[in-house]
Amino acid sequence: MISVEEAQERMLATIQPLPAITVALAEAAGLVLAEDVIAKEDLPPFANSAMDGYALRSADTRMEHGRPARLRVIGTIAAGYVTEQAIEPGTAMRIMTGAPVPRGADAVIQIELTRSDPTDSSWVEILQEVAPGNNIRAAGEDIRRGQRVLSQGSEIGPWEIGVLATVGQARVKVIRRPRVAIVSTGDEIIDVGEPLQPGKIRNSNGYLLEAAVRRAGAEALRLGVARDTEESLRQVFSQAMQHDLIITSGGVSVGEFDLVKRIMNEQGVIDFWQINMRPGKPLAFGRIGQVPLLGLPGNPVSAAVTFELFGRPLIRKLLGHRRLHRPQVEVTVEDGVSERTPRRHYVRAQVRREQGRFVARTTGHQGSHITTSLLNANALVIVPEGGKILKPGETAQAIMLDWPEE
Amino acid sequence: MISVEEAQERMLATIQPLPAITVALAEAAGLVLAEDVIAKEDLPPFANSAMDGYALRSADTRMEHGRPARLRVIGTIAAGYVTEQAIEPGTAMRIMTGAPVPRGADAVIQIELTRSDPTDSSWVEILQEVAPGNNIRAAGEDIRRGQRVLSQGSEIGPWEIGVLATVGQARVKVIRRPRVAIVSTGDEIIDVGEPLQPGKIRNSNGYLLEAAVRRAGAEALRLGVARDTEESLRQVFSQAMQHDLIITSGGVSVGEFDLVKRIMNEQGVIDFWQINMRPGKPLAFGRIGQVPLLGLPGNPVSAAVTFELFGRPLIRKLLGHRRLHRPQVEVTVEDGVSERTPRRHYVRAQVRREQGRFVARTTGHQGSHITTSLLNANALVIVPEGGKILKPGETAQAIMLDWPEE
Repeated sequence: MISVEEAQERMLATIQPLPAITVALAEAAGLVLAEDVIAKEDLPPFANSAMDGYALRSADTRMEHGRPARLRVIGTIAAGYVTEQAIEPGTAMRIMTGAPVPRGADAVIQIELTRSDPTDSSWVEILQEVAPGNNIRAAGEDIRRGQRVLSQGSEIGPWEIGVLATVGQARVKVIRRPRVAIVSTGDEIIDVGEPLQPGKIRNSNGYLLEAAVRRAGAEALRLGVARDTEESLRQVFSQAMQHDLIITSGGVSVGEFDLVKRIMNEQGVIDFWQINMRPGKPLAFGRIGQVPLLGLPGNPVSAAVTFELFGRPLIRKLLGHRRLHRPQVEVTVEDGVSERTPRRHYVRAQVRREQGRFVARTTGHQGSHITTSLLNANALVIVPEGGKILKPGETAQAIMLDWPEE
Repeated sequence: MISVEEAQERMLATIQPLPAITVALAEAAGLVLAEDVIAKEDLPPFANSAMDGYALRSADTRMEHGRPARLRVIGTIAAGYVTEQAIEPGTAMRIMTGAPVPRGADAVIQIELTRSDPTDSSWVEILQEVAPGNNIRAAGEDIRRGQRVLSQGSEIGPWEIGVLATVGQARVKVIRRPRVAIVSTGDEIIDVGEPLQPGKIRNSNGYLLEAAVRRAGAEALRLGVARDTEESLRQVFSQAMQHDLIITSGGVSVGEFDLVKRIMNEQGVIDFWQINMRPGKPLAFGRIGQVPLLGLPGNPVSAAVTFELFGRPLIRKLLGHRRLHRPQVEVTVEDGVSERTPRRHYVRAQVRREQGRFVARTTGHQGSHITTSLLNANALVIVPEGGKILKPGETAQAIMLDWPEE
């Protein structure tokens, strides 16, 4: 048996990020930048007003004998327009937020600090003195031409999309999104819409893994169920080889009916591992042709948990992410874990926040065939190997799959 | 000025979840269940083996004079198949994980605890006594017929998809995904692919909000830029009214050129609010016809932050989620926040984990026109109202937008 960490390291060592492609900006969200982005212009491109108000010479705002300065208004500048007029001593121009500051002006005073006659827009009284530069955003204050705005390897979230738009990056070079083939195996598997027949169960893994692969940021293609015949398995694997990663479920344990293992080894190089974890000890990893294959156990609970620990980091590495693993936090396990297992136990739990702490409640019976233990879980509480239990109220590390809102 | 919380409450009070629709299971991921799901069958549907091994009578596993029991092997049961044969005293059947337990057997012994002759499969030696029920998963042990598997209002994640597949739920009734119209306003806005012209800036908000709306779980439709003319605004709003929510940026501050406000009020009922926050004081909220409208400030940083605080919870309420707000944690702000502002300050920051604590580093100059303050931020550190500062190393609450992996 090898540890979870050793298995993760050995798998990840064989994986390289996918090649870069160029996509339209809106399609880059969630992907990883494959080049440095350098600004081609100063941003803002021109000095502009931070407020709705009046552009003027700061020297003209001085009060005389306690009386506000009165300036002649020579025009208006809306955002999006440039004026040829210049501010001369004793004059001002109405200016809108974002509008370019006219020549001659060195400050903007916000409208709330002025007084004017609604029926006569030709003058304005300045109620407060302002310093040079007041309410003016200088050209290049945000980003300088030639500046590196984002580095290769950055994850492109909504806010990065906004900045890329600001610098005019209509197309972006990103690491391509992986296409993942999902294969369920076994003669006992029927599709979700079919009525149950004696001895059969429904293909829950295909649907579960499809949703999990998509959530991890990849495209998921459910190839359906391979039957326990050489022909069926060969056919599904030849289809699966068109993808960037193959994830199978079932067929990796010790039983003699595991034709899957034979066909995998015939078509590629696959290692079969026993991992020191529960649920989910048996695991396969290797390549079919050039395509990496991750073989998960057939049990839905085991498939779900091993996907989180092994499948998701593989997908994130293909996507070019530097952060591959879920965050862990310390939680108080209010109901404890009384089942003893020699292997490290990943217990499904609901974590909530309570007075600044993370509090976990397990999802009930943790047998690997109890699929209801997956429901409403947002964390995996880690009970260390060696048959330990957790008393109610003891603390443990938990892998957070999703965070409580509020 | 009203508080962020009061504005959130007033907005959310006017919003109801969208109507339910029925979708194929694979399309339900991320949505909220609009009905209770009741199991129509026991699951597992039949008693089955938890291991690869031999099905037998537990009474037959007793050792005699320290010698292992030797049983006659009368057949093999693969997963997916049912046998008509029954286990009689002194006999056993090879059985695979998941295969139905044959009549007469009350236990399964795993293959590792047996011995047999590779060249003669007609017998097996049992190396350990087992109790009745050993390695047998009883019918209905996971889910009982008639049991409520998932409740209305549950969020359907990958694991819930797996359980819904298990119970044969090929189609699911869910709250419909909102379609959100995104409208940028202003004569100064040009599209991202266009060369900069004097006085113009690029439409970063449209792209930023599109990505943020998608990440929040809604469909986003960028309707483009409305010009500062009545005609252009009316046309864009009549298009926007075909959606479930309208999000605008720009046109909500005090300036006289804000035609947007007039047209909004002509076509619907809109309130203009001053929120006690920075960035992003001005905000509009109301309805155009029957469609809720959220008007964000035009400034990209303000639009980004106000979307997180107001837009995302609105979308989550439309989606039927019960948890509407991002989680908050206590962080140590290692570089502090020295800018004083009378309003509550939402400071963009990168939060990482260090020795079990969350440590924040701000993203630099926090001016509302400094779009680079959005880059690589995963949290908003909250500096309370009243001109407070945070000294380096002080703690504060932070809204987590995204969590550090590892």
